[in-house]
Amino acid sequence: MNIRIILYFLGWVLKIEALFMILPYIIAAIYQEKNGIYFLIVGLMSGVLGWLISHKPPQNKAFYAREGFVSVALSWIVLSFFGALPFYLSGEIPLFEDALFEIISGFTTTGTSILPDVEALSRCMIMWRSFTHWIGGMGVLVFILAILPMVGGCNMHIMKAESPGPSVGKLVPKVKTTAKILYLIYFAMTLVQIVILLGSGMHWFDAVAMSFGTAGTGGFGILNDSAASYTTFQQGVITVFMILFGVNFNVYYLFLIKKPKEALLSEEARYYLLIILAAIVLITWNIRGSFSSLFQAIHHSAFQVASIITTTGYATLDFDLWPSFSKTILVFLMFIGACAGSTGGGMKVSRIVIGMKTVKKELSTLIHPRSVKILKFEGKAIEHTVLRSVNTYFIAYMVIFVVSLLIVSIENYDLVTNFTAVTTALNNIGPGLGKAGPTCNFSFFSPLTKVVLMFDMLAGRLELFPMLLLFSPRTWMRD
Amino acid sequence: MNIRIILYFLGWVLKIEALFMILPYIIAAIYQEKNGIYFLIVGLMSGVLGWLISHKPPQNKAFYAREGFVSVALSWIVLSFFGALPFYLSGEIPLFEDALFEIISGFTTTGTSILPDVEALSRCMIMWRSFTHWIGGMGVLVFILAILPMVGGCNMHIMKAESPGPSVGKLVPKVKTTAKILYLIYFAMTLVQIVILLGSGMHWFDAVAMSFGTAGTGGFGILNDSAASYTTFQQGVITVFMILFGVNFNVYYLFLIKKPKEALLSEEARYYLLIILAAIVLITWNIRGSFSSLFQAIHHSAFQVASIITTTGYATLDFDLWPSFSKTILVFLMFIGACAGSTGGGMKVSRIVIGMKTVKKELSTLIHPRSVKILKFEGKAIEHTVLRSVNTYFIAYMVIFVVSLLIVSIENYDLVTNFTAVTTALNNIGPGLGKAGPTCNFSFFSPLTKVVLMFDMLAGRLELFPMLLLFSPRTWMRD
Repeated sequence: MNIRIILYFLGWVLKIEALFMILPYIIAAIYQEKNGIYFLIVGLMSGVLGWLISHKPPQNKAFYAREGFVSVALSWIVLSFFGALPFYLSGEIPLFEDALFEIISGFTTTGTSILPDVEALSRCMIMWRSFTHWIGGMGVLVFILAILPMVGGCNMHIMKAESPGPSVGKLVPKVKTTAKILYLIYFAMTLVQIVILLGSGMHWFDAVAMSFGTAGTGGFGILNDSAASYTTFQQGVITVFMILFGVNFNVYYLFLIKKPKEALLSEEARYYLLIILAAIVLITWNIRGSFSSLFQAIHHSAFQVASIITTTGYATLDFDLWPSFSKTILVFLMFIGACAGSTGGGMKVSRIVIGMKTVKKELSTLIHPRSVKILKFEGKAIEHTVLRSVNTYFIAYMVIFVVSLLIVSIENYDLVTNFTAVTTALNNIGPGLGKAGPTCNFSFFSPLTKVVLMFDMLAGRLELFPMLLLFSPRTWMRD
Repeated sequence: MNIRIILYFLGWVLKIEALFMILPYIIAAIYQEKNGIYFLIVGLMSGVLGWLISHKPPQNKAFYAREGFVSVALSWIVLSFFGALPFYLSGEIPLFEDALFEIISGFTTTGTSILPDVEALSRCMIMWRSFTHWIGGMGVLVFILAILPMVGGCNMHIMKAESPGPSVGKLVPKVKTTAKILYLIYFAMTLVQIVILLGSGMHWFDAVAMSFGTAGTGGFGILNDSAASYTTFQQGVITVFMILFGVNFNVYYLFLIKKPKEALLSEEARYYLLIILAAIVLITWNIRGSFSSLFQAIHHSAFQVASIITTTGYATLDFDLWPSFSKTILVFLMFIGACAGSTGGGMKVSRIVIGMKTVKKELSTLIHPRSVKILKFEGKAIEHTVLRSVNTYFIAYMVIFVVSLLIVSIENYDLVTNFTAVTTALNNIGPGLGKAGPTCNFSFFSPLTKVVLMFDMLAGRLELFPMLLLFSPRTWMRD
């Protein structure tokens, strides 16, 4: 293991984090909040520390898959540790475990909060929370790749470990250019949402923070009632943008290089939109009785569906009060998640589709044992290694789920609370059901449960394997 | 598709069922119950019908995997249809859908009942219920294979489709001999249990019926309180035999041919016993406070663990009242199930172990992409096709689970009830939690839910694929 190059990466992560902390510091300046000073202190700390360990590129440039996974996993842990400090040092979140939980929930774009009263936070802290969604959505290391001059094949290993989905498609041959294009699209789309929300009469602070949460599919609200008090139009805008940020960014790239036909043929995006449509129709039918008009039923059904499948986690109402059929659909959407290559979490639509196709193929092999059928996705044959890693992903997912649920259940809350708390953490969603529902917060859980959920959030965001490898003795063995 | 040979099989199934109905008829004669006449009528009906369609072997002996799956799926449906008739015609179960549910629950060794008062049934009906567990446990078609002179490779196809587990190991080269050995072991072990229970002072009727339920890992009780009113010793005997019937029968065969070393080395059996031990220890620790002595805590914990992991479903108490941690463990045990090649249901320990090994291998491949590692189970390399079918099984399982849960949730009971009702049906267990708990019965569910659960029970017993293939258009297409 090349420890030096991993440290070099961690140094860059710290420097970038220092850079990011400028934004909340500016917000503090605007609102004349004293607690802004903590962003300055922590920013300087992490900047200096980062410079110390990364001012000289390492001699040994050996960088393999193992280094990639470890760099990514450690980066996210370091990022979260320093990101939590302003909350803790300022005393706005008194317990360090809570501050860490909140920031991991932010960076992993989960959006689960331990705060009983969000509005009591100072503005700079609220903006920092929402901003971490935006940073975490596209990935910090992808950002570093876009700006950092690196040599060799390390870029691809990093990108593989941090990007959501079963296989990473480089948009263009060079990883660095791919990373730049991704961030460009991301930045532009966020800007458009901010502008539209401003145009609808939303306060600039809300418009920016809510757009960060939407873009990263995070879901930290800045009001205690999440998105319930915005106008129907504003909620509609958020609905549309949540769905847009859940689409595979390849699709936007294809539009960008004027290949709209290829963009519209994206198999994953089509299934994704189909699932959304089906879920909205079924839930609307199920809850139509409790709304004055069909439009209202469709509106709220669409918002919640978009929020859950993209794993954002905003809410316009308490869907824990919905009938079981609708709640069951929402729980399934939690597992499905958004498209690969988007900012959303969950298992990803492509994995589900590939999984389904495997079953269909196996069924026909059972009837006609000698028939040879090739599995295709997005018009191309699925490689054997991708297929195997999708299958392994499902099993690894179950293992993490089972162990987490067992530990969480020691606390003796009801099964629905435990089950959805783990689901919501592992899929980076935000609210669950029961005591973990949209009107509740996670502060009441024990420290042990919080640690498990923090691990799950990170595992979910990094697609399981980097976090699992961190705990595998083989990773740390000498060759 | 060779329809004639499938019909020939169905004919044999009907003849065998007629034969099986002699037992409840004898019970009726002993207890002088008038309703015994219905077993005579239905037995004659199915016997005559069976003779009509199978008295002449078909000319075309072509029998492939497709015919095997369809034969097995249809056999179980026909078997259940005729098996339900005595309940319905006698009026002891007034609704046909309920009678069918009860008998499918019997044959699939699920043990979920729609009866609010089991003890109100006549003795012959109670014995028939328990006897169907015994018949279904080892498989009706395996039984037919043991007695029926058939040609060609059809035997293996049948055995593959009906036997629980990822891959069928023939004990000896001839399928027919394998089937005979299996039934011999099964019969002998059941007999031993009956004798021990008789020796403990249990009434002969209870001893026979409870042993049938244990042997088939079914779980229909003959008293309203399941197994709660038997003595601690009797409960202990049932605990031990539940565990024994959940072991892969290969192990007993190895003992039988005096290869105890190989028998003790069985990887699946070791994991199975390890899981049982771990679950008993954890649950005992969790519930120790509610019992007067540690022995009582261990006793009840062991009984419930054995009952659930082997998917039997007897209960000595209402485990729905246990703390969440224990309930969560039980829910996981429901999914794990017993060993392949036993009479138990669930996903099977071997599938879980193979799945885990896949993850472990994939993790090490991620670190060392060029390393070649061969997956081994029971000391042998796992064939690629087995690995693939295990992975597909997990996904197919999830698909059936999701669709079933969605339909069941339309009824708007709470999530725990819906979730565990589907779990318990698909894994052939018996009791779930909530409204589907051990002190409840399933009569309150709507006909739609009952149909879904019936499908799940059959799909679970036949390892998913035969039932799925029945609904696949490709199965019925001409070549």
